[in-house]
Amino acid sequence: AAYSAAAASPSRLLLRQLFEKESSTYTYLLADLAHPDKPAVLVDPVDKTVDRDTNLVKELGLKLIYAMNTHVHADHVTGTGLIKKKMPGVKSVISKASTAQADHLVDHADKIYFGGLFLEVRATPGHTVGCVTYVTGDGPDQPHPRIAFTGDTLLIHGCGRTDFQFTENYSRPSQIFTLPKDTLIYPAHDYKGFTVSTVGEELLYNPRLTKDEETFKSIMEDLKLTYPKMIDIAVPANMACGLQDATTKS
Amino acid sequence: AAYSAAAASPSRLLLRQLFEKESSTYTYLLADLAHPDKPAVLVDPVDKTVDRDTNLVKELGLKLIYAMNTHVHADHVTGTGLIKKKMPGVKSVISKASTAQADHLVDHADKIYFGGLFLEVRATPGHTVGCVTYVTGDGPDQPHPRIAFTGDTLLIHGCGRTDFQFTENYSRPSQIFTLPKDTLIYPAHDYKGFTVSTVGEELLYNPRLTKDEETFKSIMEDLKLTYPKMIDIAVPANMACGLQDATTKS
Ligand SMILES: [Fe+2]
Ligand SMILES: [Fe+2]
Repeated sequence: AAYSAAAASPSRLLLRQLFEKESSTYTYLLADLAHPDKPAVLVDPVDKTVDRDTNLVKELGLKLIYAMNTHVHADHVTGTGLIKKKMPGVKSVISKASTAQADHLVDHADKIYFGGLFLEVRATPGHTVGCVTYVTGDGPDQPHPRIAFTGDTLLIHGCGRTDFQFTENYSRPSQIFTLPKDTLIYPAHDYKGFTVSTVGEELLYNPRLTKDEETFKSIMEDLKLTYPKMIDIAVPANMACGLQDATTKS
Repeated sequence: AAYSAAAASPSRLLLRQLFEKESSTYTYLLADLAHPDKPAVLVDPVDKTVDRDTNLVKELGLKLIYAMNTHVHADHVTGTGLIKKKMPGVKSVISKASTAQADHLVDHADKIYFGGLFLEVRATPGHTVGCVTYVTGDGPDQPHPRIAFTGDTLLIHGCGRTDFQFTENYSRPSQIFTLPKDTLIYPAHDYKGFTVSTVGEELLYNPRLTKDEETFKSIMEDLKLTYPKMIDIAVPANMACGLQDATTKS
């Protein structure tokens, strides 16, 4: 199996992984450096680290165009609303299936362009019914290996809980597992200090998602997780870009 | 300025960044995937995460040959001694200038090979007198952009304290700042969730190391830092690969 280090096309794609300690959330900054504007997107920004992230965008001379979520998070408040206030012109993005509000509601198979690079939307329900995975494009001008931002659908050697938020307890995320084995996996969280994995590694070592549906269900039901601390604050806020006050929505 | 995403030569260099939350330490796993043995090195492993790191080495089918430190850490106990116990044949590495014990004591300009790839040793005293930066090699078969593992000499938009451990309060690390601007900087710590920077960014935005020596000294003296919590445990242990019991040293 070919295990890859990190994003290629280093002269074109900028990729920065950022960590928020309290919720152990990873935020990702991507930009097309080959485009004169250096258009950029943020995936899964957190409200508490909006200043850090927008400062980094400025330092790197990027033009942020989208602030995107993989799903309606239950453990932290999204930074998309605050980012839109600080950087007018930025559009929020989430899946239509999430039933949340955003400037762009995306469907499976949609493409989200930033410069000449793009992210493909892949529906990967399970953790929530509206979970999507954003995958870099296929093609000679796109990063190689491909990169999948899996949210909580696929965590490194794990997956997000499936016991709340209208889920139907899906198991194997075939929309991720059919990607090339060297595809880099960047999740929304890690609690053990891992930063990246690959499809090949998760096909071998993921202790949950490699199981058949029956086994998966019984593993997930046996977890007996406590009620998520932040859910009653985070979910209503995240249904509206992290800003519960509807008048702030542009 | 060209800001790069991540390590190139993705088919050859494996690079994994790993985080230890308690001390906010980054450990790095590097391997040459083009060599049949997949020889690997760990930079700045932490005692508490040795199991995680050695499991990852096994999962990826790598052959760990060196467990290296950038310096004698004062905030955590190195994992090198434990790794040697778990994986006989692994050699510990530290700079001769550190006066610590290890299997290989390295000097400025030494090269540390793992397969066909290597790390150059660059003396970067300041945080401690024996601090070194490990830099990937220059050449067509080596990763591009280059990658510098700076320990605590250069932290992202910061630097390690210079008020203990025989330091003479050096400022600008010219051995790092003369590297190409797109050189990736991977530090031993980050406290704000940044994972990587570049020489170009630090030349522009590092608020300490960009200053002249006088200003640098007064900034560092004004920090009025408290006595490091772990220093009396960590330093004596780290002088001997994290194992104070000398009989355990191979
Ligand atoms: Fe979630
Ligand atoms: Fe240190």
